[in-house]
Amino acid sequence: MKIIVDAFGGDNAPLEIIKGCAMAVEKFEDVDIILTGDEETIKKVAEENNISLNRMEIVHAPDVISMADHPTELMKSKKNSSLAVALRMLSEGKGDAMVGAGSTGAMLTGATLIVKRIKGIQRPALAPVMPNASGKFMLIDCGANAECRPDMLVQFAHMGSVYMKNVMGVENPRVGLANIGTEETKGDELRKETLQLLKKEPNLNFIGNIETRDVAFDGADVVVADGFTGNIILKTYEGVASMISKKFKDVFKKNIKNTLATALMLGDINDLKKSLDHNEYGGAPFLGVKKPVFKAHGSSKAITICNAIKLTRDFVASDVIGKIAADISGETAKQDK
Amino acid sequence: MKIIVDAFGGDNAPLEIIKGCAMAVEKFEDVDIILTGDEETIKKVAEENNISLNRMEIVHAPDVISMADHPTELMKSKKNSSLAVALRMLSEGKGDAMVGAGSTGAMLTGATLIVKRIKGIQRPALAPVMPNASGKFMLIDCGANAECRPDMLVQFAHMGSVYMKNVMGVENPRVGLANIGTEETKGDELRKETLQLLKKEPNLNFIGNIETRDVAFDGADVVVADGFTGNIILKTYEGVASMISKKFKDVFKKNIKNTLATALMLGDINDLKKSLDHNEYGGAPFLGVKKPVFKAHGSSKAITICNAIKLTRDFVASDVIGKIAADISGETAKQDK
Repeated sequence: MKIIVDAFGGDNAPLEIIKGCAMAVEKFEDVDIILTGDEETIKKVAEENNISLNRMEIVHAPDVISMADHPTELMKSKKNSSLAVALRMLSEGKGDAMVGAGSTGAMLTGATLIVKRIKGIQRPALAPVMPNASGKFMLIDCGANAECRPDMLVQFAHMGSVYMKNVMGVENPRVGLANIGTEETKGDELRKETLQLLKKEPNLNFIGNIETRDVAFDGADVVVADGFTGNIILKTYEGVASMISKKFKDVFKKNIKNTLATALMLGDINDLKKSLDHNEYGGAPFLGVKKPVFKAHGSSKAITICNAIKLTRDFVASDVIGKIAADISGETAKQDK
Repeated sequence: MKIIVDAFGGDNAPLEIIKGCAMAVEKFEDVDIILTGDEETIKKVAEENNISLNRMEIVHAPDVISMADHPTELMKSKKNSSLAVALRMLSEGKGDAMVGAGSTGAMLTGATLIVKRIKGIQRPALAPVMPNASGKFMLIDCGANAECRPDMLVQFAHMGSVYMKNVMGVENPRVGLANIGTEETKGDELRKETLQLLKKEPNLNFIGNIETRDVAFDGADVVVADGFTGNIILKTYEGVASMISKKFKDVFKKNIKNTLATALMLGDINDLKKSLDHNEYGGAPFLGVKKPVFKAHGSSKAITICNAIKLTRDFVASDVIGKIAADISGETAKQDK
């Protein structure tokens, strides 16, 4: 399996990206890497840091698309950027999947315009897998589509369900619609219409509305939202988790007494930290495009990239895209009746 | 000052409500209480628990409106409920403000239909004051209006700003619009239109869009949202805070070693817990109605009710409603030009 990696995406590129790829190659025998980016720099960084480029092919791409560039520059002035080259190669079948930690907007634009949508899919969605009280859940969409129609949310529900089952190993994933109350009459028109559509869907374990208070407590395996609401949930979630963790950390470091007390249970606190760390989950797939495209967190370290490659490998191996296509064409057939 | 309290609203009514009123009366010399509810029960509960009813008048109201009742029953079958009687008395000028811990929907309906809106206000909003990394902020609206127009959000911004300045003592409150990015082009149509209106508002310290990741880190003193988005933020915030705190608690109680280690810094952990406890903030005012109506948390204990009465006292004393009315009529005058 060949996974194309944008060596120049993310805050810690290219060093942590190259390191993460080397980790993945060592860990997964069936994975070869194609790195896109400035060839000379990649070779120099690898050499300086004693990183083996074994089973890694470098495809030269001199430009970098930055957060400051408009995403559509990917098709114009930045068509020789590491991201554009990676997505073009994926589209042309020169690799099985693509991983990047760069600008979400540019990756979404590129995935939609270069890799293109699965037939029948109205809009691709960005769908992070996040930690909760007892494991993990998928939030779909979390920002690709600020305004949505009910039928788009129904497709998100299907795509999320297929991914959680096949990549994350959740049997019969529970799908909930993020809303301001559990009753059927709650929410705005988008929620009310979507709820009625989701209730009628076959092949979906739809459990109804879910209040966002319950999202952190494992209320559903797939939380469905329009991109605006999903992004609000994602960022509130990250912000509050980070703030509360920081507050505890401040207590632990307040004085010598507290530092010593904390040292007595450091292993357990580190385990907790790890269980809540998004780096453990690697990032978010773009669901709805024709080939697997996986967004790693912008602040990705080597371990995050390695995890992202692992998830992308499972994404390819379990043929999630074929299954989404089959699911959606069934849905389309049903609607055509 | 006379504050009317619904003795039968909330999970811990009537005991904790009566206790909280007694605490408030003792603490604040200028506050007298009117308790609405079943007279015999109130007297019995007070006697059995040795609570003095000094400076508390009881107004008999035999019914209770429950979470299961439709809010509009307040005007029909439940017009003799403790809540309906409390709001009618407020409307008739028999008290200066009203505090309740019962159903939010019923309180909102009653506040709007019985107490009525301030002239010029399109919709009242429910606006909790919540803890953040370094203090507190107001989230307005958090669920009173699931669908909003831009001009309603502008009014929320003004009302929140007046409250935070006059009741919470924040000089020149920073007002942010909850959105999925800080750039002006971010968000849906509602956000884009609202941003342009807010930028033009005089008498408002508008700081632009705020990402919800920054809400927990004191990004603004007043966070403006439509009721749907606000409710999503509120419940995600509460859910994640509660989940992470529980995770730490589990570590602290995991075994004897950890329990002992925790004991060494228990004071600091309790201080942290207190700083994040919504009970410390007492609840949320309904802003936009003609008289102060204050919603205490449904799970309020005596201390929460006492805090709610304190905030309601400041709400009355600082003439927030007069100031909102003046602010809005200025705004209306400006729009009429």
